Amino acid sequence: MLTENTVAQWGIFELELGGKSDGNPFLEVSLSAKFWNAEKEFLVPGFYDGAGTYRLRFMPDAQGEWHYSTSSNQVELNNIEGRFLVTPPDENKHGLVRVAHQYHFAYDDGTSYYPFGTTCYAWVHQTEELQEQTLQTLQAAKFNKIRMCVFPKHYPYNENEPDLHPFEKNAAGDFDFTRFNPEFFRHFEKRVQQLGELGIEADVIIWHPYDRWGYSQMDEESDYRYLRYLIARLSAYSNVWWSLANEYDFLLNIKPIARWERFFEILCEEDPYQHLRSIHNGNVNMNYDHTKPAITHVCIQNWDVKRTKEWRSTYKKPIINDEFEYEGNIPFAWGNISAQEVVHRFWIMVVNGCYAGHGETYEHPENILWWSHGGVLHGESWQRIAFLQQIMAETPVGGLTPIEDVWLWARVSGGVNGIYRLIYFGEHQPMFWWAGLPEGDNYAIDIIDTWNMTISPGALRPARIFMAKELYKDLPQFELVLPGKPYLAVRIREK
Amino acid sequence: MLTENTVAQWGIFELELGGKSDGNPFLEVSLSAKFWNAEKEFLVPGFYDGAGTYRLRFMPDAQGEWHYSTSSNQVELNNIEGRFLVTPPDENKHGLVRVAHQYHFAYDDGTSYYPFGTTCYAWVHQTEELQEQTLQTLQAAKFNKIRMCVFPKHYPYNENEPDLHPFEKNAAGDFDFTRFNPEFFRHFEKRVQQLGELGIEADVIIWHPYDRWGYSQMDEESDYRYLRYLIARLSAYSNVWWSLANEYDFLLNIKPIARWERFFEILCEEDPYQHLRSIHNGNVNMNYDHTKPAITHVCIQNWDVKRTKEWRSTYKKPIINDEFEYEGNIPFAWGNISAQEVVHRFWIMVVNGCYAGHGETYEHPENILWWSHGGVLHGESWQRIAFLQQIMAETPVGGLTPIEDVWLWARVSGGVNGIYRLIYFGEHQPMFWWAGLPEGDNYAIDIIDTWNMTISPGALRPARIFMAKELYKDLPQFELVLPGKPYLAVRIREK
Repeated sequence: MLTENTVAQWGIFELELGGKSDGNPFLEVSLSAKFWNAEKEFLVPGFYDGAGTYRLRFMPDAQGEWHYSTSSNQVELNNIEGRFLVTPPDENKHGLVRVAHQYHFAYDDGTSYYPFGTTCYAWVHQTEELQEQTLQTLQAAKFNKIRMCVFPKHYPYNENEPDLHPFEKNAAGDFDFTRFNPEFFRHFEKRVQQLGELGIEADVIIWHPYDRWGYSQMDEESDYRYLRYLIARLSAYSNVWWSLANEYDFLLNIKPIARWERFFEILCEEDPYQHLRSIHNGNVNMNYDHTKPAITHVCIQNWDVKRTKEWRSTYKKPIINDEFEYEGNIPFAWGNISAQEVVHRFWIMVVNGCYAGHGETYEHPENILWWSHGGVLHGESWQRIAFLQQIMAETPVGGLTPIEDVWLWARVSGGVNGIYRLIYFGEHQPMFWWAGLPEGDNYAIDIIDTWNMTISPGALRPARIFMAKELYKDLPQFELVLPGKPYLAVRIREK
Repeated sequence: MLTENTVAQWGIFELELGGKSDGNPFLEVSLSAKFWNAEKEFLVPGFYDGAGTYRLRFMPDAQGEWHYSTSSNQVELNNIEGRFLVTPPDENKHGLVRVAHQYHFAYDDGTSYYPFGTTCYAWVHQTEELQEQTLQTLQAAKFNKIRMCVFPKHYPYNENEPDLHPFEKNAAGDFDFTRFNPEFFRHFEKRVQQLGELGIEADVIIWHPYDRWGYSQMDEESDYRYLRYLIARLSAYSNVWWSLANEYDFLLNIKPIARWERFFEILCEEDPYQHLRSIHNGNVNMNYDHTKPAITHVCIQNWDVKRTKEWRSTYKKPIINDEFEYEGNIPFAWGNISAQEVVHRFWIMVVNGCYAGHGETYEHPENILWWSHGGVLHGESWQRIAFLQQIMAETPVGGLTPIEDVWLWARVSGGVNGIYRLIYFGEHQPMFWWAGLPEGDNYAIDIIDTWNMTISPGALRPARIFMAKELYKDLPQFELVLPGKPYLAVRIREK
């Protein structure tokens, strides 16, 4: 007989159990469970959720009958068994995002995922009203990833005290890093859940240096306990990505490389679903060694996006330049580039087979800056990023591979995927171009104005005489007529 | 008794001699002279100028009495002696341009020289009318350097046959690399002379790969003879710079590195005045080893101008990025960037203590493209480059040193020279900026619109509260109010 419990594939099966609330359950109680079906088994960590309540959360990756059995050092939590039925996934649920085709991403069900994310570091630490507004904006702007911190943020423009903290205070009024604040985490999870419902991946930033509460200074044991608590609470949410740090290198005096390595190990060993794992630098010369196998994809901060192909060939993994500088007008150089420049950089990176992250930092009378607080968008890049995202959604599955040929493509960005070609001219403004056309004539050509967001048909004409064929032997027979202005792209597709 | 011959300092004293015209004087006749005054001596090569005429040219670098004495394997050219008087230099004559302050340039008389050059590779190979027009345009546009080839150029848009060639043809109709064509060189020298009168340095490109006449394929002996003939004819012109090649790396299959090394040696040994020496790459990854002592300054081709500081710290010499891509609309990526981008890159490089070179490649109904033919300018960058040149002319003597501080200046370009500061924001558009003000209050602040070419006074206000002083301890007390739009610069000067 099957239990009446059912859960959709890639949804969350949650087991709530009662247990002791005295002492310090966070330190004293161990809880985990095996979950299995006919084919495989997962070891799932449980957690204490306060007030004598313990939870185990499991995300089944396959339909049909599943079983579980708990283990605990507490008799009332030990050897609890059961089974449940996993039904087809909810609409628009595709499972976890994984690395695909080496440089790109796809969901578990094979659907391509092209990250077009934004950054609202401390949005879960703002007023309820502002958080709701942020969700509405995210949905309207069509972002499909968000970088967000667990810990609150202490930084210029961002000094408000959050309502909830991830730890409880002790009698002396200091945060007690052995006692998590379940209310905080329930709130955080609600936001992760809501993002998931909007199809938005939560790129959860676990540590960061901008801190006045001591979170960045925790000792090794507290750090590991905190990481394990996050795994236990969050890993059943299919839209979670683990970002070990924003700007890990500014924390090296507190957390040396060995500790970051251990964090990666713990994630590899204890996250049942192997969510994506990354770490993000501050100084451009302080990239982590992203070639290490525990790192699933490369998150970097670098403003010189003409180096995009170098990053790709150095790391041979998906690249997301999450902080190439934000649209805005604050005095920090990382937060004051023009919308035009943001859109330009996005196109360069995406057409070269990498990905980029948005942020917005316009001065605001109440210091509500999207990059940290969320709220509403004030800039002009986000619409153009959504336009590019739509163009990428129409590419063949997978992603783009940069065209490497030196003389013609080294400066103009060209990406290919089979017969599909997307060429971005950026600051280049030719009157015509040797389009690098694929074989055959069964294709359509579009000229894309990346700023004005228009797409119009392109035309070919026979290549002209003065090509100096002895210099450029491989020139195609046809050339593409272009309007001779900057910030254009060309798309070539199968008809 | 002094001879009646006089010549101005840094002018040309020329001795014309008669000799044999039979056989091959270019191969058979050796001619040189010592020139000396009370303090020093120069060994000056002579050359055959055709029709039994031999010449020796000398550029005196000091006023007063000078003497000479010739040496030749021909009795009628040997042991000819004389003396002459060197008078003060003509107005606007400052001597040769030399390296100064390690990263910059100055004339012999100490006057600062900031290179703001352009490129007209084959202008001396066009019609007389077009050449005269080019000179007028150069003067109007205020360029003070031009990259120009000795040899004609064979390239798309540039296939016209020149009227004059540097070599004579033999009976079979092939160019005879043992017989120079004096008429060609007299013409070339006239243009160098005219440039000098306009205050324009002639960056003479000795070899290049774009050739259908065989000049790029000459054997070693012919190459060395050609180089020595250039030294003998041109080195007395104070405005000559030696550029061994445009795109030497595309000639490596013909001329290996050892030959380029020998060219530098010959220049070092035989150019009496030690004109500036450089060599220019084609592929961005094929920079010559510019650290070699024979190379006075670095000429590179590289479009990623965000690397400017790297070049400076790698080579520790003056840097001129002579081909960072030209303003235009032809299909070659090196010749189709927007005027805005050209001006942007110029500012980045100059404020970071380096220099840049202009070129223009707009399609033209008669294929007259400035970059190769000269003529008139059609673009919008040259006026802005002249505007920047004027700003540099008003800097304290020397040049700019980039501000290296990581957090504030790594992305925004700042250059200093004593109390003088020039800050370029480029794509950054802050509403205010921590200006990095010098000590004291005896300075004026200007806000410069680099595109619209306006200069307006800037204002300071006390730095605001939210500076997070615990994060940014060294922030100045004042902040500079800015208009929050891109492509602005700020100048801070002593009042």
